[in-house]
Amino acid sequence: MLAPRRLWHNITLFDGRTLQPVPMTIAVIDDRIEQVCPTTDAAGLEGEVMQVGGVMTPGLIDCHTHLVFGGQRADEFEQRLEGASYEDIAHAGGGILSTVRATRAASEDELHAQARPRLEALLRDGVTTVEIKSGYGLTTEDELKMLRVARRLGRELPVRVQTTFLGAHALPPEFKGNADGYIDLVCHEMIPAVAAAGLADAVDVFCEGIAFSVAQSERVFQAAQAHGLPVKAHAEQLSNLGGSALTARYKGLSADHIEWLDEPTVKAMAEAGTVATLLPGAFYTLRETRVPPIELLRQHGVPMAVATDGNPGSSPIFQLTLMLHMACTLFRLTPQEALQGVTTNAAQALGLQQQTGRIAPGLAADFCLWDIDAPNELAYAVQPGRLVERVFNGGVHKA
Amino acid sequence: MLAPRRLWHNITLFDGRTLQPVPMTIAVIDDRIEQVCPTTDAAGLEGEVMQVGGVMTPGLIDCHTHLVFGGQRADEFEQRLEGASYEDIAHAGGGILSTVRATRAASEDELHAQARPRLEALLRDGVTTVEIKSGYGLTTEDELKMLRVARRLGRELPVRVQTTFLGAHALPPEFKGNADGYIDLVCHEMIPAVAAAGLADAVDVFCEGIAFSVAQSERVFQAAQAHGLPVKAHAEQLSNLGGSALTARYKGLSADHIEWLDEPTVKAMAEAGTVATLLPGAFYTLRETRVPPIELLRQHGVPMAVATDGNPGSSPIFQLTLMLHMACTLFRLTPQEALQGVTTNAAQALGLQQQTGRIAPGLAADFCLWDIDAPNELAYAVQPGRLVERVFNGGVHKA
Ligand SMILES: [Zn+2]
Ligand SMILES: [Zn+2]
Repeated sequence: MLAPRRLWHNITLFDGRTLQPVPMTIAVIDDRIEQVCPTTDAAGLEGEVMQVGGVMTPGLIDCHTHLVFGGQRADEFEQRLEGASYEDIAHAGGGILSTVRATRAASEDELHAQARPRLEALLRDGVTTVEIKSGYGLTTEDELKMLRVARRLGRELPVRVQTTFLGAHALPPEFKGNADGYIDLVCHEMIPAVAAAGLADAVDVFCEGIAFSVAQSERVFQAAQAHGLPVKAHAEQLSNLGGSALTARYKGLSADHIEWLDEPTVKAMAEAGTVATLLPGAFYTLRETRVPPIELLRQHGVPMAVATDGNPGSSPIFQLTLMLHMACTLFRLTPQEALQGVTTNAAQALGLQQQTGRIAPGLAADFCLWDIDAPNELAYAVQPGRLVERVFNGGVHKA
Repeated sequence: MLAPRRLWHNITLFDGRTLQPVPMTIAVIDDRIEQVCPTTDAAGLEGEVMQVGGVMTPGLIDCHTHLVFGGQRADEFEQRLEGASYEDIAHAGGGILSTVRATRAASEDELHAQARPRLEALLRDGVTTVEIKSGYGLTTEDELKMLRVARRLGRELPVRVQTTFLGAHALPPEFKGNADGYIDLVCHEMIPAVAAAGLADAVDVFCEGIAFSVAQSERVFQAAQAHGLPVKAHAEQLSNLGGSALTARYKGLSADHIEWLDEPTVKAMAEAGTVATLLPGAFYTLRETRVPPIELLRQHGVPMAVATDGNPGSSPIFQLTLMLHMACTLFRLTPQEALQGVTTNAAQALGLQQQTGRIAPGLAADFCLWDIDAPNELAYAVQPGRLVERVFNGGVHKA
């Protein structure tokens, strides 16, 4: 017997790419979208009517987060505002290495208990797919632990979790002065272990003067490729070092941050199909002034994604709809571009464009209904609580 | 018979001024806080134990909003990002005057229905007191209509609503070229009508080159004073015109925005007891670069409040906890200063310091319990949904 059809009629639909000009009907069977058509053409469709009217978008996708981490850095945030310098804080053991210490010290259950409310905040905001990176363990076992926590969150909560191995996030203290030695460990031990355990969907590097060089990043990409894992990078955040160009050469899924991107690299990304992931929360938190080259990305047709970068230091923000407002306000994206950035382009940044990110036949029934009159209101106003209903893989979750 | 005592024990308490160093007990009888003492001293206190443990702050106070308005400006937001100039938009009837048109056209019920979700968003964020301004009617009847809607919201929802008459917000089109004539109407007809109806708790003006002069603002203040109403101003947002100094001379409750404030005026405000209300959401939305003189305000002991400025144009933001993060990140307040800014100092900006804004004996039982370990986390991370319980006038509302 066929599963029953469920119908959402008379919907104002942003389908992941554009706002449909007429009221639409969305038909769902099981966990898939079966049909999408104007409601005037849906008279013959039989099924259970779930909803008539309302604004629908794809389920939102936060394609860049670090939401599994131990401890938090509220005290450091406070000390900095009370006048402590970055050196003071580093001297007192603060900064990213304090998160590494806390993450290493935490059990899997503790990490899970700390991460879950952050993910739940994203779910209440309309997220149905989230990427979670490792990168605060920096030992093989601790990186595996972080990735297991991420996978567990995906099993327990109604959300699709994509995991990314980011062993090359920072140099752990025990490798001080020996970055190449640490990259050896990443390539020869961590990536094989992560791949063997099936714990990562992609591999990321932080390619920057304060992190790893282009040559070191390339070694990581080669190891990833040898294990069949797609790559991405934190790149061109603080300088034009070449991480995004490297990523394009390796047909990477995305280059993220990219405030310092140049035009040849934009072209290379367009040819490679590499998504430009914009992280306005980090730009805002770090009070940066150099904006990513939005106009060049538009000209060359590079898909732009928008994500929270949710992390304990440079973007302690777990609210994806706020990133819509920040992408428009700070980076001058249009509301439509921002919405594409958290739906169809975010799916592409995760290699999931055949599964989710659009409301189209055959894709997962992942979508949100909102208490607004038009989709652009999601970018225009910061007003939590407008989510009415979140549908993930066909499962309906009332907000 | 005495009403029963209710007890919150072992509380990590930010009382509106400081973080208490030891676990505290808060005793409530009816709608008032009866006692606040270390839990170790509370053994003899009898009553119903409501909660043991948790982080408590005063109920949050958003002391500057324009949340009653007709229509919205998402399309204008979109057009601007698609390249339309401010002139294009003004020519097409956009900007504040489009909100005036929509507000005039809306019935009281329609205005109420549109405003209520914005206020409910603030309540879910921990707000127990909110100020709501008029200023989009700009006729006597439409200004009264806005204030009636604000009062009605305060009767219907568990929140204390303070209303502010802001007739001198913008020059209505029918007075083009005749600002003094409009100020005549504000002083001789609107303020008397508003006062007679008991619809306003204070009077505000927008003192700026693009709005009203210091002389015009002073006429409004004199009319307010004649009717026994305290005053405040939108001042020194875009230039150092003198609105804040005027406000201090009239012993105003607050001067708001104040990016261009100078030191003599800071001193005058300190002497007058005028609160400096910081509006980082407008600073951020308008991408301003001149920061209010925080260090001078500190040196001279001017209390700083922090508010959303929630409005359809320059700050379409209805999330007060986000302002904690923005006040710290953009204006470099400490988390404690930001928290004082949405509690005790916000109460003072509304003249309510004897009623709410602190957790102290005799004040209203307005407080929030949060799912965090320390109050500074409220400013450090943007993560909606950490409110556990909101208590307003002793009434407990689960989040
Ligand atoms: Zn990141
Ligand atoms: Zn205002």
